[in-house]
Amino acid sequence: VRAVSPAAFATQCDRQSSYDVVLGKPLDDPIGLLAEAIAGRPALIVTTPTVDRQYGQALRDWIAASGVNATVEVVRLGEANKTMETVLQVATAAKRRRLGRRDPLIAFGGGICCDVVTLAATLVRRGSPYICMPTTLLAQIDAGIGLKGGVNFDGCKNFLGCFAPPSNVFIDMDWLRTLPSVEVRSGTAEIIKMALILDAELFEVVTGGWQRLLRTRYTDAEGVGRRVVARSIELMLEELQDNWYEDRSLQRLADFGHTFSARLEELSGYRLRHGLAVAVDMALSTVIASILGMLTHDECEHILAGLELVGLPTFVPWCTAGEMFPAARASARNRGGDLNLVLPTGIGRATFLHHLEDLPLTLLEQAVDRLQRRASERPCAPPRTVVAEPAPLDGITTPASVRSAA
Amino acid sequence: VRAVSPAAFATQCDRQSSYDVVLGKPLDDPIGLLAEAIAGRPALIVTTPTVDRQYGQALRDWIAASGVNATVEVVRLGEANKTMETVLQVATAAKRRRLGRRDPLIAFGGGICCDVVTLAATLVRRGSPYICMPTTLLAQIDAGIGLKGGVNFDGCKNFLGCFAPPSNVFIDMDWLRTLPSVEVRSGTAEIIKMALILDAELFEVVTGGWQRLLRTRYTDAEGVGRRVVARSIELMLEELQDNWYEDRSLQRLADFGHTFSARLEELSGYRLRHGLAVAVDMALSTVIASILGMLTHDECEHILAGLELVGLPTFVPWCTAGEMFPAARASARNRGGDLNLVLPTGIGRATFLHHLEDLPLTLLEQAVDRLQRRASERPCAPPRTVVAEPAPLDGITTPASVRSAA
Repeated sequence: VRAVSPAAFATQCDRQSSYDVVLGKPLDDPIGLLAEAIAGRPALIVTTPTVDRQYGQALRDWIAASGVNATVEVVRLGEANKTMETVLQVATAAKRRRLGRRDPLIAFGGGICCDVVTLAATLVRRGSPYICMPTTLLAQIDAGIGLKGGVNFDGCKNFLGCFAPPSNVFIDMDWLRTLPSVEVRSGTAEIIKMALILDAELFEVVTGGWQRLLRTRYTDAEGVGRRVVARSIELMLEELQDNWYEDRSLQRLADFGHTFSARLEELSGYRLRHGLAVAVDMALSTVIASILGMLTHDECEHILAGLELVGLPTFVPWCTAGEMFPAARASARNRGGDLNLVLPTGIGRATFLHHLEDLPLTLLEQAVDRLQRRASERPCAPPRTVVAEPAPLDGITTPASVRSAA
Repeated sequence: VRAVSPAAFATQCDRQSSYDVVLGKPLDDPIGLLAEAIAGRPALIVTTPTVDRQYGQALRDWIAASGVNATVEVVRLGEANKTMETVLQVATAAKRRRLGRRDPLIAFGGGICCDVVTLAATLVRRGSPYICMPTTLLAQIDAGIGLKGGVNFDGCKNFLGCFAPPSNVFIDMDWLRTLPSVEVRSGTAEIIKMALILDAELFEVVTGGWQRLLRTRYTDAEGVGRRVVARSIELMLEELQDNWYEDRSLQRLADFGHTFSARLEELSGYRLRHGLAVAVDMALSTVIASILGMLTHDECEHILAGLELVGLPTFVPWCTAGEMFPAARASARNRGGDLNLVLPTGIGRATFLHHLEDLPLTLLEQAVDRLQRRASERPCAPPRTVVAEPAPLDGITTPASVRSAA
């Protein structure tokens, strides 16, 4: 043995990845990009009962026409069963179909489907390739285009998860045509999030053209919806570009609306849709910024009015100072101990409230109080928007008690 | 909205990581490298009942002396409970101890402990830092120093797992002093693996100095054991250097002994220790190479005799051609469809048998037959080496039926 006896061995283990997010028509062309991405390998396509009802036939027609060796697995997916058990169910399907190390899993569904398949693919054989085909507005501009997979665990949203780049993302905006309106609003919340921190014009286009965007599910003939979606994707990818793995910094502008929202979802028993919880969180953060003098009264009103205009809630009964105070602490544990609350300083720009001490309970009480009073003074704000409608969660019925509580 | 309407958005998401593997005395110095790595954060140290019995007091003394905010979680760990349930048990402990996003999990145990904690840390909050303190020979030169985490699933070894670099690896070779001899042999199998593919001299040093290495648990006063361990670590890190994530290639020399071994472990109900299964796999691969004329008869004998000299099995009853033939197919699924069986072409060099067609059933039958005959002709080969002794698996008793079968 050579006389090697050092005390420390240095190891470098960099990893290179890249992928494209493509707006196109993956199921319209049997020899197109999707078939090319699968490249003759066996593939497992995971979808949900809702998506299967709407697009299962088109999917199976495409499989038959393209001749790819793909099988379809329909899995019940909602926040309430966004769990490790469901991930293991997908892993079992991959094993049963004898998928190998380089054979892709494909998510064909909303954000939860993308999150679960991302995690399952990452675990199977220590990392199998996966393709996302997000079908909801929220997934097309947020959950389905990034690196994050995750499941809820022990009462904590996304406590277990991963960062793993997809090999491809294929988006067909025509899949939005069958979305229930609450899903359109939920996705719009994330678009408004990107607009408020980065692009004032985007905020005006979405709120100004809302009726048409809602009616056409972002697929208007003039292409406004498509430009909004394309711009949102571009902003999201740009914003995350230098910190995909959240290892450079835990101060992320894209966390706007994501400090209190997870707790709101948990408190609602995951009946409050993600985008709607984000809207309430953005409203709360906006009022906090206003109280702190970072935002003028008019700007604050303009933001809240914009949220309300597109049918998003600015308050829900679960939003109490007593609950939001520990929620901020739980978020800080996810951010290395710092609060890093994103606060708008105008339309299209934002800053951070760094430390937990900067958010005393009295400030939270004042902000919650203002939003609660505002909600009670506007009886026209549709309470229906708070909980999911008309299809709450696949396989889960919203109890009447919650509907009336909202 | 700016006129952004491209069809595809290109995304680059590289990740940089590095870490050191340190041979030292982490628990001897309360203000040393380990305390520095924990850096005042809360930490969760996961260990096993066996390690806790031997080194739990030293660990607790170190915690008290260093003043770090660390808690110890003792978890039963063996191949049979190397499962996602155990990973979730560690995740629950991390959540209960309120570990945040930058707070480390620490594995203090053998290869299974390192594998499970690696996966748990990777999942918790989408990736928490983790530190490995491997206590067995196998973990110190293999399982505890790389990127792989994993658990068994649905009858398939390591079907679920991850690649995730540790933030630190701290090794104290004095922890080897209390190892049962079967554990010393199991780790020696992985050292011999590296030697046979890359370093003929290492093979001679280990087999030539075996009695002393075994008696001193690689901690002889002359430092032979330390040089062997250091050289093995160096070879392993060098070999994996350009392909840490197995994304460049699925042809890996370090897979020598790892084509049939997983199935042998599964067939034994995980009572056959990993290193011992690797030894049988290496023996089988060596005989295959000999039959194919890649290796002289003398070189083949030299390798088999070396394995036997250090008390490693070259045959076990589970090693039948009928089982090893599909095992090769299962391994190929993990290697993108190719067999990539590593075959020695001499002492210290190796090549690949690339395709499944290159390994017909008749060839396997011939090789297994030769090893079986050899084993029956050498009644002195201690059958005790086959199953675990004296401490089989934490919390698991080896049934008498298996002991006698072996």
